[in-house]
Amino acid sequence: MNNVKTIGILGGGQLGRMLSVAASRLGLKTHIYEPSANPPAAHVADAVTTASYEDVAALQAFAASVDVITYEFENIPTSALDVLEALRPIHPPRGALATSQDRLVEKAFLQGLGLQLAPFADVQNADELARAIAEIGTPAILKTRTMGYDGKGQARIMSPADADAALADMAGASSILEGFVNFSHEVSVIGARAADGAVSCFDPGENVHVNGILRTTTVPAKLTPSQRTDAVLIAARILNALDYVGVMGLELFVTPQGLIVNEIAPRVHNSGHWTQNGCAIDQFEQHIRAVAGWPLGDGSRHSDVMMENLIGDDMDKLPALAKTDAAIHLYGKSDVKAGRKMGHVNHIKKGA
Amino acid sequence: MNNVKTIGILGGGQLGRMLSVAASRLGLKTHIYEPSANPPAAHVADAVTTASYEDVAALQAFAASVDVITYEFENIPTSALDVLEALRPIHPPRGALATSQDRLVEKAFLQGLGLQLAPFADVQNADELARAIAEIGTPAILKTRTMGYDGKGQARIMSPADADAALADMAGASSILEGFVNFSHEVSVIGARAADGAVSCFDPGENVHVNGILRTTTVPAKLTPSQRTDAVLIAARILNALDYVGVMGLELFVTPQGLIVNEIAPRVHNSGHWTQNGCAIDQFEQHIRAVAGWPLGDGSRHSDVMMENLIGDDMDKLPALAKTDAAIHLYGKSDVKAGRKMGHVNHIKKGA
Repeated sequence: MNNVKTIGILGGGQLGRMLSVAASRLGLKTHIYEPSANPPAAHVADAVTTASYEDVAALQAFAASVDVITYEFENIPTSALDVLEALRPIHPPRGALATSQDRLVEKAFLQGLGLQLAPFADVQNADELARAIAEIGTPAILKTRTMGYDGKGQARIMSPADADAALADMAGASSILEGFVNFSHEVSVIGARAADGAVSCFDPGENVHVNGILRTTTVPAKLTPSQRTDAVLIAARILNALDYVGVMGLELFVTPQGLIVNEIAPRVHNSGHWTQNGCAIDQFEQHIRAVAGWPLGDGSRHSDVMMENLIGDDMDKLPALAKTDAAIHLYGKSDVKAGRKMGHVNHIKKGA
Repeated sequence: MNNVKTIGILGGGQLGRMLSVAASRLGLKTHIYEPSANPPAAHVADAVTTASYEDVAALQAFAASVDVITYEFENIPTSALDVLEALRPIHPPRGALATSQDRLVEKAFLQGLGLQLAPFADVQNADELARAIAEIGTPAILKTRTMGYDGKGQARIMSPADADAALADMAGASSILEGFVNFSHEVSVIGARAADGAVSCFDPGENVHVNGILRTTTVPAKLTPSQRTDAVLIAARILNALDYVGVMGLELFVTPQGLIVNEIAPRVHNSGHWTQNGCAIDQFEQHIRAVAGWPLGDGSRHSDVMMENLIGDDMDKLPALAKTDAAIHLYGKSDVKAGRKMGHVNHIKKGA
């Protein structure tokens, strides 16, 4: 097909695991780079490097052993990326990663594209927080600019009296205050862009979060035809502006005033797991195709799906789930912990 | 779910590779045992043993490292199975393997179940071949009793004059003569049986062979409703008679006089590859579920599919295929050789 035979993946969690499986479908090998031992992706990878992101020699050896590098999470240290990028191409591009690593940079970028966002303000200290609350109002939510995921690094401010406690939660980290958006529901678009600029988006999915963690995604989402078109156009605009290569997750709030961008993730996304049982080519293969320089595949939806995450003790439901017609996807994690994503299930709605 | 965490797979080819991927979906690890270096399954396995089937110490260490053992091909030396079975359960059962390893034993077993077969006769020498030709007639086909696959170990006898050459082709191996069956087409049923005796069959697929190698499988197959029922009942009868655990491939000739059993394979089967894009649970996962002691999953067909093998130079078509809506499955084999199965493609027929 081309000269890409081995894909290096930074991060060995469930996303790396499912990327590795998708790569195997295309006859490609993967090499996982992960600081912690026995990560889920290692079970299905051709090679694994267990080393920290500060280990320059390990990073260089890793890069030398692969043809192209991608990643399953956005919080990769810049110094590691510098080492790697000197040796091999990294997709999605550094610019996308830098944008999504910092909520303030991300919002400024999205605003620059003319997209609708929740009101936000940069917050470095108590004075700035007080000004931001006065401007944006409450309820609002204070978030660290970097390193937040699955609801971590966030504090709700229901009234100005909550400001001090919220700021203390940030533990000195640079933060932004976001105003609440009065939305009816959240949807996400999983968009893919190939090296030649071709863009393909999966059907938008409708997300339900509980305690900041994605609980279910359902396709099709409740959207009007024009909202559906808008969602895809927004994703394409972002992908093109970033000169993106790979799959990106885009979360949108649905409001009477239109779609409001919540955030982007420069990687395969939990809200795209339904594609494994709803499409011939899933988000993982679409990402691998783009990263490996293949044309994008057929991401059209052949079945309606409800994806349900299995989090922590949800694993107790497994024996019962195994007897149903659900498609089960487990991550091979040895220990069940509260809040830990252990797997997911795709419930396919049978056609008439 | 239960105590099975790691599945040992004998054989590291494409079937082992796709079994390993299916195991990962259920959170299970695989350990591949394969004499040749760098087999396709190794790219997606947690562990690989490179050793011969005569290496007792390697077989014992392999068995000790897994919870249950299965296989991707039927020609496993009996001595190796004896070593392994003393340590861990083997699924599908030894009886199924012994039956399918020898065409004469297989046919006697199937005949004993009251199933329709092509006429056949045991052939050890020229005299027996002459007698068999007189009884069965020509055209007929002489096959080695053991070790045949993909049309190897077979010689056609179009008239009695071909007898000597055909016997010479067998190179002294015990053989059977099979009469030709006047069939309209061949179908196969991929049947699964769980440890608790539950049986589930995928929809029959219609096979086209070229030069003894499977070229395409199409679902749904051309069958009347009663033929479809018969096909599934035959599969279930065989599975139950063998007290089978796992997936079995069953090839049937469709004739005006009903379905005639061609052969069985005690493993996942090339003619079942369509299930990867036609069903929520494919043949590989169904096999892993059975072997690991899980309930069988939902093997109902959500899409019509035409599976096309990529053999040898068919790989030249890959750049064009990658631009279509086909689902591509490559095996990661480094060298393209004539007649070598390099991958397959599933063409999904879009619903109305």
